[in-house]
Amino acid sequence: MQQRLERASLAASRMLSLETEVKNSALACIAQGLRENRDRIFYANQLDLTAARQNGLAIPLLRRLEFDKKKLDDVLLGIRDILALPDPAGKVLEARLLDDGLILKRVSCPIGLIAMIFESRPDALVQMASLAVKSGNAIVLKGGSEANESNKVLATIIAKAGEEKGLPSDWLTLLETREEVGELLAFDKYVDLVIPRGSKEFVSKIKAESRIPVLGHSDGICHVYVHEDADPVMAIKIVLDSKIQYPAACNAAEVLLVHAAFAHRSLMALLQALSKAGVMLDVCEKAAQILDKDPGQTRNLHYSVKTDKDWAVEYLDMRMAVKIVYSLDEAIAHINHYGSSHTDAIVCASSEAANRFLKEVDSASVYHNASTRFADGYRYGLGAEVGISTSKIHARGPMGLEGLCTYKWLLEGYGHIVSDYASGERHFVHKELPPN
Amino acid sequence: MQQRLERASLAASRMLSLETEVKNSALACIAQGLRENRDRIFYANQLDLTAARQNGLAIPLLRRLEFDKKKLDDVLLGIRDILALPDPAGKVLEARLLDDGLILKRVSCPIGLIAMIFESRPDALVQMASLAVKSGNAIVLKGGSEANESNKVLATIIAKAGEEKGLPSDWLTLLETREEVGELLAFDKYVDLVIPRGSKEFVSKIKAESRIPVLGHSDGICHVYVHEDADPVMAIKIVLDSKIQYPAACNAAEVLLVHAAFAHRSLMALLQALSKAGVMLDVCEKAAQILDKDPGQTRNLHYSVKTDKDWAVEYLDMRMAVKIVYSLDEAIAHINHYGSSHTDAIVCASSEAANRFLKEVDSASVYHNASTRFADGYRYGLGAEVGISTSKIHARGPMGLEGLCTYKWLLEGYGHIVSDYASGERHFVHKELPPN
Repeated sequence: MQQRLERASLAASRMLSLETEVKNSALACIAQGLRENRDRIFYANQLDLTAARQNGLAIPLLRRLEFDKKKLDDVLLGIRDILALPDPAGKVLEARLLDDGLILKRVSCPIGLIAMIFESRPDALVQMASLAVKSGNAIVLKGGSEANESNKVLATIIAKAGEEKGLPSDWLTLLETREEVGELLAFDKYVDLVIPRGSKEFVSKIKAESRIPVLGHSDGICHVYVHEDADPVMAIKIVLDSKIQYPAACNAAEVLLVHAAFAHRSLMALLQALSKAGVMLDVCEKAAQILDKDPGQTRNLHYSVKTDKDWAVEYLDMRMAVKIVYSLDEAIAHINHYGSSHTDAIVCASSEAANRFLKEVDSASVYHNASTRFADGYRYGLGAEVGISTSKIHARGPMGLEGLCTYKWLLEGYGHIVSDYASGERHFVHKELPPN
Repeated sequence: MQQRLERASLAASRMLSLETEVKNSALACIAQGLRENRDRIFYANQLDLTAARQNGLAIPLLRRLEFDKKKLDDVLLGIRDILALPDPAGKVLEARLLDDGLILKRVSCPIGLIAMIFESRPDALVQMASLAVKSGNAIVLKGGSEANESNKVLATIIAKAGEEKGLPSDWLTLLETREEVGELLAFDKYVDLVIPRGSKEFVSKIKAESRIPVLGHSDGICHVYVHEDADPVMAIKIVLDSKIQYPAACNAAEVLLVHAAFAHRSLMALLQALSKAGVMLDVCEKAAQILDKDPGQTRNLHYSVKTDKDWAVEYLDMRMAVKIVYSLDEAIAHINHYGSSHTDAIVCASSEAANRFLKEVDSASVYHNASTRFADGYRYGLGAEVGISTSKIHARGPMGLEGLCTYKWLLEGYGHIVSDYASGERHFVHKELPPN
């Protein structure tokens, strides 16, 4: 492992100076390689699928594992999109004249060697490798073991195509066993960042074991809070979209907080709309009391009273928890306590309440009068989406190629030394320059 | 521990919405509190000093431990400087119109709860607390145990003064034992970032134990590389300043790489200058051979031949390793292999060599024709210096108040839902807006 990571780390150093043209022609060559080797890929995928069926893998997992013509077309489109994006490295982020002829620049650059650990889906491997090429990072990849045959073929084709166009050898390393991942996490000497994608338990385990910084998405406990002055029509529209537009996504809302004053007027209408759309409701006792006042209306309502106190629920399904709160403060405190710092929205008319919510809710994405489902790299206009980070450090929320870059400080002088400034002979001017 | 951190984490949530005026008046009140309680502080410091003398603490450490009138004046000046800086939180970093009336903003905000773990110096406690106030972060502090009495008094005065002006209670938590630090590192639920300051071993240990992201400075193995076409006068000037201007600093150069072609002409003059300034030289065998050709000149040279292969040396003293290299490639590879990604400089005339060096050396700060000693927050024009990060994630190199901030995404609409875009009824416009 040590030798493989050392070689990968050397490749990362060599990739620091890749020109945009080299990266783009590598991406084009990777796309071509995948197209030309489609039969080899489909065959390997069939081996995985056969083994998975024999092992009784569940249907949704089998579907994720499948890599067919449709998936191939999708990843090829993805590569085309990434190819068309501007190079995220080499951008001057700030520039400052420190003194005559002494110019300081902060410039974006690749992070180095990134380990990406994901589950099952072979198409994720292609996407991650493409993002790594465009951002100029070397990568270590580990996919789900049930996709081993597919991943091996894909990694071989991609690594070779990249090398053909000038990427250094060992720019892509594929790990095949879970034990290797455990070993890897100790090598902070070589690996700069670990990005795990998977279940909350999986990400937590990686974080606990790793000496390397981990950037990840653990879970998505997203809230919609309906304030007392919310327009009921807008509230219904936003809550519905947040919950049902794609319930399995991490940015789907799981918990609905309703101000008591709003609830007394319009809770029934709000929950009727959810129920009619097929959402099962777990309501707090207070909400149940409010509903009970109008028993004629509850007949078509699919709800049960939630008696436990665990509001950190992630259903990822047509199910939603509902809680009555008595103030904006209570709503904010609830979200900061039970939420996962992912995406939370307020529906309200007052800009004062909105501003407090936007400022005080400690989440990566905080919305006013918009659906939580907007939390997505494409919708944000980031081009490619690397993932959605619930970490607070480095990158937060929907993460584009910039999340795979860091920066360095470049200083150019003509013999400038510090002792001239310490002696008072020279003085810093610190004049901001236009960054370019 | 859990309860204390939970309270601190609640304080962090409350600090998210602090107005700049509140932060600044808290800073002013902290300065006043320190001035008014000077005798209490000096008395506590005397207790620490007496105990430290009895325990036989070395003179340089005693000096770091001392908190006298001079140190008080220094920290008061420091607070005044931090007060005068612009608020790093609440800045709109980018803004984008996603669609009619749907505006996305990326806004800087405090990270949350930061644990700062440092050694000995009580003045560092004051500085860190002031930086935390200005950036809007709650903090957990742990200083060296030999400064416990001083730290306790300082923390009490500072916490109280902050609360008087509107900071939430528990915004500052002081830990007093090393065991508490070990406990803290497991609470990634409450603590968002750990910033350790201390020896390499200390920082490594924290990194190994922590489930929380660690941002730190491990060591400073900085290089000056003198390329074949370097001007000998400039080379001498830069190498001398990089080494002797303040040899104990992390940005002082430890290793001198000299291109063989330059060495054959001017190694003797370069090393004579260092030697004359009092620098002991550990030279590679090739360098010794070159020097031996001119035995008349080596009489006044303080050098010995370095026989071991360990080039990852951090002397922090008037001592320097010297190695002959045969190409720019070798110099870059050496630095990326043995360096600590801190600060490295090239002295050369050719802009082609400079550009390759600036791009390919994988360090936080990379210089052309300037002394490594420039790597410093004040010299970079960052205002306050939080520290110098050798991490690659989040903040790199000299780190100002921005390093204590992260960002969040704010989205404001008037009832926008995703299903309108999924159905094709509406389309994203993704128009960049001026950020403010």
